Amino acid sequence: MLDAGEFDSAAARVGPLVEHTPLRECAALSDRLRARVLVKAENLQHAGSFKIRGVLNALLTWREKGDLPAGIATFSAGNHAAAVAYATAQLGIPAVVCMPPKAVASKVDAVRRYGGEIVFTTDLVGACAEVIAERGYRLLHPFDDRTVIAGHGTVGLEILADGPVPDLVLVPVGGGGLISGVAAAVKTRSPATRVVGVEPLGANAMSHALRRGAPDPLPQHPHSIADGLTAPFAGRHTLAHVKAFVDDVVEIDEQPIVDAWWPLMEATKLLLEPSAVVGLAAILTGAVSYDDGSTIVLVLSGGNTSPENLRRLTPDPPARS
Amino acid sequence: MLDAGEFDSAAARVGPLVEHTPLRECAALSDRLRARVLVKAENLQHAGSFKIRGVLNALLTWREKGDLPAGIATFSAGNHAAAVAYATAQLGIPAVVCMPPKAVASKVDAVRRYGGEIVFTTDLVGACAEVIAERGYRLLHPFDDRTVIAGHGTVGLEILADGPVPDLVLVPVGGGGLISGVAAAVKTRSPATRVVGVEPLGANAMSHALRRGAPDPLPQHPHSIADGLTAPFAGRHTLAHVKAFVDDVVEIDEQPIVDAWWPLMEATKLLLEPSAVVGLAAILTGAVSYDDGSTIVLVLSGGNTSPENLRRLTPDPPARS
Repeated sequence: MLDAGEFDSAAARVGPLVEHTPLRECAALSDRLRARVLVKAENLQHAGSFKIRGVLNALLTWREKGDLPAGIATFSAGNHAAAVAYATAQLGIPAVVCMPPKAVASKVDAVRRYGGEIVFTTDLVGACAEVIAERGYRLLHPFDDRTVIAGHGTVGLEILADGPVPDLVLVPVGGGGLISGVAAAVKTRSPATRVVGVEPLGANAMSHALRRGAPDPLPQHPHSIADGLTAPFAGRHTLAHVKAFVDDVVEIDEQPIVDAWWPLMEATKLLLEPSAVVGLAAILTGAVSYDDGSTIVLVLSGGNTSPENLRRLTPDPPARS
Repeated sequence: MLDAGEFDSAAARVGPLVEHTPLRECAALSDRLRARVLVKAENLQHAGSFKIRGVLNALLTWREKGDLPAGIATFSAGNHAAAVAYATAQLGIPAVVCMPPKAVASKVDAVRRYGGEIVFTTDLVGACAEVIAERGYRLLHPFDDRTVIAGHGTVGLEILADGPVPDLVLVPVGGGGLISGVAAAVKTRSPATRVVGVEPLGANAMSHALRRGAPDPLPQHPHSIADGLTAPFAGRHTLAHVKAFVDDVVEIDEQPIVDAWWPLMEATKLLLEPSAVVGLAAILTGAVSYDDGSTIVLVLSGGNTSPENLRRLTPDPPARS
């Protein structure tokens, strides 16, 4: 299990290269929820999501040890892919990312813009293993990696450093890398803070793993408008961290995600991908409760969305009253 | 004409009550435009636009003199209205805002949320005069007011304080309050910086005033997707400041505004109203030129947009290549 020192090391390592993103208080949401609501705007992070934190922590740790590989291979629905392409370009090594054919266009474009090579495949893990075998590249796992988790934990450190002690932190859950890091970093410093994960019912790898007691793959192919959360399985490390540090993981339906998207964009004036809004969706549906006046932090995980998503998510204009 | 000292006074007055908004470097735009592009994110300002700066400067100036009126009356397409409602609520005095019936729903909602009273009317100036006569309220002009202009100038001060000296600052123009303040504040400190205004061809009150040599009303009712820029006339003070401090005001068509909206949202991960993107539109159409490697600041004036606008502005998804 990661300890406090590993998060401090990660912060020192990646701090100069990542955005210390704003933690912004949101008056419109605070009024609406009768709470003090702050958002951690990781959509403003380099490459458009928190992922760069873990990726850079892994790559820089290898470099410190004189152990940078010839290239990186990975698999991802998009945000990890973009982060790997961005970070490897900075360090001057090549990267191959295996992506599903239906990956969001803007995430594909981001990988290309940063110079990453893409393999479109439905067999993400298999294709990635092939690249590793053929080229001698090294796998950088999108979430189930202690160093990646430690890097993501810097989100939690910044939340504690920049704002009031939160009563509740809500974190989107895919494979569990972000929540593992945030929960471990926050709970070791502020044990009274509740850390709750939120995942789509159609892409509930972590809830599935918690019920099974092991990170077994989902029986169905995961599917959600929150494309960033569609990991087909949780991980050994992430399951262990979630069991140790996370108070609850809740599952929510698709419609609440759609319904939360515009209100959260309008309240924050930030461009958000659907995955980033599941925390608010969980509150608005009552899946997560809190006392009036609580200090709540919503981790807005990313902003890599597409015109296609905008069309699907934009509500009908209200009739003028 | 406003001098440097008046901007410093305005900054001291409104500084504690407004957001010092981020000036963010945008790598994706810098690459695309072969320049160093920074954005001043006034969409993250209280009430969703820069307007609160000028409004608060006016109200606080009156309060300093012991001269706060019984109430405020004003007219606005939306952002000034929302700012007046927000600011008067803070100071505990009532406000009536006269708005066009077609005002963007989210701007109407914002006025209501802050407790402002709305009169929907096509005769903005006449209805406002009536409220003033009947209730003894005082007009707070949406742009043609020296104190309002001085408040808006704090945007310029923050740009100079937070970033490199810009070669070019691009500012959206409606009635001219923002550009008057920004240009005067920037030019008195950095005379080599070019300050260029951008307005829609269908709502070109300032270009019209410059051609006429007087702030005469537009012959047609102004119309643009950039609803925040549809002032029916420029002002005496704003025309004078634009003539004295602004290098150029360019007019652009509607389609370039539509075309610039998504790319600027995607590059910045910020929610922007159409008015905020006219600066990028002017660059992409070649209406404004610059040398490669220039430092360019785009003033993103606001983020109060609506689902209706999203539907009109979202591009068709590109075919997967």
